[in-house]
Amino acid sequence: MTTFSNKRVVRIEWGDCDPAGIIYYPRYFEIFDASTAMLIERATGLNKFQQLKKLHFSGYPLVRTRARFLKPTRFGDDVTVESTIKVGRSSFEVEHKLSLDGEVYVECSEKRVWVVRDAGGKLKSQAIPESVRSKFAK
Amino acid sequence: MTTFSNKRVVRIEWGDCDPAGIIYYPRYFEIFDASTAMLIERATGLNKFQQLKKLHFSGYPLVRTRARFLKPTRFGDDVTVESTIKVGRSSFEVEHKLSLDGEVYVECSEKRVWVVRDAGGKLKSQAIPESVRSKFAK
Amino acid sequence: MTTFSNKRVVRIEWGDCDPAGIIYYPRYFEIFDASTAMLIERATGLNKFQQLKKLHFSGYPLVRTRARFLKPTRFGDDVTVESTIKVGRSSFEVEHKLSLDGEVYVECSEKRVWVVRDAGGKLKSQAIPESVRSKFAK
Amino acid sequence: MTTFSNKRVVRIEWGDCDPAGIIYYPRYFEIFDASTAMLIERATGLNKFQQLKKLHFSGYPLVRTRARFLKPTRFGDDVTVESTIKVGRSSFEVEHKLSLDGEVYVECSEKRVWVVRDAGGKLKSQAIPESVRSKFAK
Repeated sequence: MTTFSNKRVVRIEWGDCDPAGIIYYPRYFEIFDASTAMLIERATGLNKFQQLKKLHFSGYPLVRTRARFLKPTRFGDDVTVESTIKVGRSSFEVEHKLSLDGEVYVECSEKRVWVVRDAGGKLKSQAIPESVRSKFAK
Repeated sequence: MTTFSNKRVVRIEWGDCDPAGIIYYPRYFEIFDASTAMLIERATGLNKFQQLKKLHFSGYPLVRTRARFLKPTRFGDDVTVESTIKVGRSSFEVEHKLSLDGEVYVECSEKRVWVVRDAGGKLKSQAIPESVRSKFAK
Repeated sequence: MTTFSNKRVVRIEWGDCDPAGIIYYPRYFEIFDASTAMLIERATGLNKFQQLKKLHFSGYPLVRTRARFLKPTRFGDDVTVESTIKVGRSSFEVEHKLSLDGEVYVECSEKRVWVVRDAGGKLKSQAIPESVRSKFAK
Repeated sequence: MTTFSNKRVVRIEWGDCDPAGIIYYPRYFEIFDASTAMLIERATGLNKFQQLKKLHFSGYPLVRTRARFLKPTRFGDDVTVESTIKVGRSSFEVEHKLSLDGEVYVECSEKRVWVVRDAGGKLKSQAIPESVRSKFAK
């Protein structure tokens, strides 16, 4: 397995928060989904639109996720998301650590599969091309 | 122009609301978009997935919207959305009135175009089929 | 531990879906969060706004969630969410099964804590009142 | 009336887009809401959390918005949002222009009111403090 990491800063917005004044937790999964896309963009040099077009696949849907919410964030917080990928044959796992001022607030792990559409238009898993896999070997 | 109306009840959820305890206004547009889809479903007997499949078009993207927010709603409110469509040649307009206990809280109007994909995959407007238009003449 | 269940039907909307034509998975967590609120509403007879007002607490933030995505849903699907709660001292766990035509598409478990605000405005866990706990013993 | 402008770049994400592969338009309003908050942050030097705390008010809910969608954006697009505020007595208006490669894709105008909570907890409009208004006079 090869691994690769990326770090980005995300502002928690007013509209991400609920009447308790803290983030509404489904927003974290939007942040993590975009963090995974960004990580793959950093590795391949292609944004997700370009990835789908040039790498001839249909996406990397989630098959499993787990998250622990240690402390709540709120609007105005500029959190850091550090994402680390481990690439398998036709699937990969990403660990996200969301932190504020050096302290971890949320931990999330996800497993995704590399899919293509078959002749009937159904999504099915496929081996990740070697040309892609090699990008993560840094 | 032919017109057609539909009414539905929507629960405002905790996650739709912001730290002020009232609805975060972009959520209204999600409600209105689903209300337009539901209105067309009531007229045609087809949900949006079936519409796209059987009516051979690619959607009805918004080209213009206007909304007035008269009073705020909050989580736990069961609001009524009454939507009225006026169908033109290749576009249509929908008026939404969102009310609670008989009082109007939000008014929204939208204009949408009926689109298909051309040979190059680009979205372009097209005349609404007569078979569809006739469904709204009630 | 006492348990209590609730079932509800949810329409997957166009706006819940991504360019692959299937649901964008963070939307599932919005559905599950509302399903938990609905379950507690069924047990207590109070919607979430009334719960916070009459039960003198500040919410039940998530501390942990796990989900498995077995098959993708898409717009137009009317899925059934069956939610079962196990109530502990100051926390509770909910299992959600999201199914379509009798087949399970998503499984999710969550752990939440019952919180109040202390004098300084900070959220802290508290024992779930016996008057609430007893509502789930059916 | 005094005016003030701000410009920021926003990435359109996969999860912002719908099965047509283009942005789901309610997401634009999330972008515009955050753009207004950012504009006020640039003028006052306070993020929205700090604004509410230090300026002793409860928010600036929307009372009216209008938007025109000239061309669709899609995931991977890095759009520029230029926002210009005109500050009145107890309300203000913001014009947003969302563009890509120098071409305007969306135009939106919004009117918001400056609100405080009265003794009963209800939101009511109030004159914008001179100390705030003066920040926009640049």
